[in-house]
Parts: sequence; C-alpha cells; structure tokens
Amino acid sequence: MELLLIGIGTGNPEHLTLQAIRALNSADLVLIPSKGAEKAELAHLRRTICDEVLTNPATRVAGFEMPRRDAANPSYLDGVNDWHDAVARVWAETIAAHPGADRVALLVWGDPALYDSSLRIAARLGAPVTVIPGLMSPQVLTAAHGIPLNELGAPFLITTGRRLREEGWPEGVDTLVVMLDGDCAFATLPPEGISIWWGAYVGMEGQILDHGPLAEASPRILATRAAARATRGWIMDIYLLRRCAETEPVRA
Amino acid sequence: MELLLIGIGTGNPEHLTLQAIRALNSADLVLIPSKGAEKAELAHLRRTICDEVLTNPATRVAGFEMPRRDAANPSYLDGVNDWHDAVARVWAETIAAHPGADRVALLVWGDPALYDSSLRIAARLGAPVTVIPGLMSPQVLTAAHGIPLNELGAPFLITTGRRLREEGWPEGVDTLVVMLDGDCAFATLPPEGISIWWGAYVGMEGQILDHGPLAEASPRILATRAAARATRGWIMDIYLLRRCAETEPVRA
Repeated sequence: MELLLIGIGTGNPEHLTLQAIRALNSADLVLIPSKGAEKAELAHLRRTICDEVLTNPATRVAGFEMPRRDAANPSYLDGVNDWHDAVARVWAETIAAHPGADRVALLVWGDPALYDSSLRIAARLGAPVTVIPGLMSPQVLTAAHGIPLNELGAPFLITTGRRLREEGWPEGVDTLVVMLDGDCAFATLPPEGISIWWGAYVGMEGQILDHGPLAEASPRILATRAAARATRGWIMDIYLLRRCAETEPVRA
Repeated sequence: MELLLIGIGTGNPEHLTLQAIRALNSADLVLIPSKGAEKAELAHLRRTICDEVLTNPATRVAGFEMPRRDAANPSYLDGVNDWHDAVARVWAETIAAHPGADRVALLVWGDPALYDSSLRIAARLGAPVTVIPGLMSPQVLTAAHGIPLNELGAPFLITTGRRLREEGWPEGVDTLVVMLDGDCAFATLPPEGISIWWGAYVGMEGQILDHGPLAEASPRILATRAAARATRGWIMDIYLLRRCAETEPVRA
C-alpha cells in the first residue's frame, strides 16, 4: 500500500496542478473527511474537486469521520500526538474496508509540508508516502496583494500567531508571514514602522484583503475579521508583516 | 495594458495549476526570454509549456533578448536596479511591437513572490499586475524528501546562501531553507546537531536528492554537486537544514 498526500491549494479548485490531478486519478481510493472537526465548506471543496477532475472510473471515494482533538489535554503536544494516533487508526480502518486499495490518496489543504499533520499521521501507517506539493496560503496571499515575499536578497520567517504573541518580533528578520493566528497577534505589536498585508479566505470565494501601516490597518482588520467571522461562521486568515521598508505594495 | 506574472513551478510542466493554464490562454501576448542570461534548458521549458497548454489561437508568443546584469558594478543593489531598468525597457519595446496586446503574460520560474525580479520589473511599466502563484522550490524540495517544512508549531526561515555564509546560523529558529547558494554555505557551518535535506534540479528531469547528518552528507553533496554541474553544464540547488530534532525524514 502507498499513500499519496496531494496538496490542493487554498480553496480554489483551479489551484490544482496537473501533477495533482494525475496523482488523484492514479489512486484506487481517495479518503475524504466527511464530517467532524473540519469546517463543512472545506470538506465540501474536496468533494467538488473529485467531481470536477476525477475521471478514472476505478477510483473509489470513501468518507471518514475525522476524530476530534482533545483540547482539554493539559499537554498540548500529548494532545496532538493522541489525535494523530486516532486519525491514523481511522485512516487504516477505512483503507481496510476497501480491499485492493493499493494507492490511497488524501487531499491536503494547501501543501502537506506546511503546518499540516498529514505527514506525521501517514508515518504512523508505516506505508511509503508520496507527496504532491500544492499552493500554500503564504504565496496565495502575496499573489493576491501583488507583493514579493522577500525584500531584495533578504530572508523572511514563516511563523505562527502563538509564537508572535509570546515572543514578539523575532531577531534578525524584517519580514514575517504569520499563520494559525486565531487571536490577531499583530495587534499586540508596537506598530511603528510596520506594514501589514492581510487576507482572509485567500484564494477562495469571498476573499477579503487589506493592507497598510499597521497602526491604521490594525483596528480596521480587527473589525473586518470579526464581521466576516460572524457572517460566514468561520474564518481562516494569514498576514505578512514588513518592518521599515516597502510600505506600499508593488501593485497600487 | 495589464501584465500577468504566471508562476510555472520548477521545471516540470505538470507543476502548472489550472489557474495558470487559464491565465496563459487569456493573454494576447506571451513574452519568452529567447536567449541571454537564462540557461538554455530553462528558457526551453517555457516554449514547451506554451506548446503543451496554449490552446487559444489568438495568443501570440514573442521572444525577447534578456539583458545581462553588469556584475562589475561596484554596488550590488545599483547593478540590480540598472538591470531591472534594462529588462523593463526590453519588455516595453517587445510589447510595443505587438499592437493590440492588452493582456501580456510572463512565465515566471517558481513563484513570482520568491527571490524573483518580475514584480520589481513590472512595477517600472506602470501597468496593473496580476500574479498567479506557482509551486516554488522549497515545497518541491520537501515534497521530494517527504518531510515537513516546519516542526510542530515551530517557525522556519527562508534565506540565501550569502546570508548564511556571512551571518552564520540565525537566532531563534531551528529550520532554515537556503536558496540562491552557488557556494555551498552549508559546508561553512559547524555541523554538529544539524541535518540537511538537499536537492538539485528539484522537480525537473535529473532531480538529485541527498540527506543526512550534515557532517556526513556535506562532503558527499559537495562531490555530487560538482559532478552534476560538470555533466549538465549548470546547476540549481536548494536545501533545508534542521537543528537538533527530526534527523530522519518522515519517509524512510
């Protein structure tokens, strides 16, 4: 048995690469989270992708119920590890229920390498893993704003909201891309000399963008974010922070 | 006039997204560097992509001669800026030679946001710019090795060989992705506790991978790299360095 972890981009079916489409059609079985922890909209997207690009009549699609992570576990890492164990068990059971499934595909939001559990869960099954990269939210954000990730020859850091909140602006870098931030860590920074390029639902229908000097943009983004979350029922956002230089995006 | 900067991935025509294919076919004119500073193989790939996915008979393809950067300019930044000016002039002249070209596409290696000049050159033309993201080498590298970019909840830095050589391992981060390194900066680090995942021509035909503890892998990679460069006439490589943890990849 072989596992295919296929990156599908961030919610636009057109983010799929030709390689991803070919990998999907090479699978005997595609596992789709049918309900549980995932947002209904995000789960639905995987079904849409299968409907649109799956042309191999031999490929079966199977739903599985995604276990919930025990957020009450006092150890964050133990909680995550237990959850990965539980997901791996559900994958194995679902695969076992489909005899002859030698190539099993999972459709991974964004890219399987970036803040995603699929590689760690797949490792628990002991089967060979093939990864198909997919567009990831940092590049979909910068494309939407028409800005580069890096300044000329300069490094940038990809980090999480929790790290930014707990540790402040890290040493030695003027560009940060912040992900997994449910609590608007940007609003905790002294805003002087910082610009923000923010996006919610990047690449999806209903994408919202804002940018500007952090002092001005921060309250605007807080309000936009709260309103969007209330209207849509969920939100997924990401932002790039740049210190000192290039306060205006390349695209006016 | 509108400029479309279309990310095409790292050398595999199947890296193209459906969005990129649609954008390409929406263009009146596609600008292709026909010779000059670019490696012949890389320039050829753009022609191959046009041959394979361009189905709109109204889309014209025009070659242009890529100016060379004056490496003798004592100021690196001045040299780069002069070169961007020169490329912008050639783009403008080529577009002017094709009346009625309202949507002009450029096929950008990797993603236009990552260590690429296209956004800065496009800004000189004063036209609106649309960016279509493409797979970039860090994610093609990690997919090939079957490893994640980040450790659980941890940040990572994307940087250049020059920075790593001049400044050493940066503070506060255990994972580095190093690009634009013609001189094997990894070999200048004290190797203890560091693992490397290296790749050359990632995503392309002839991809070469190696990984292991830096002390053991470093001389091996230096030899492999020199031999590959001699054989193929050019090399483009990238690597991920991780300190302390996860010395083995997820995929055995």
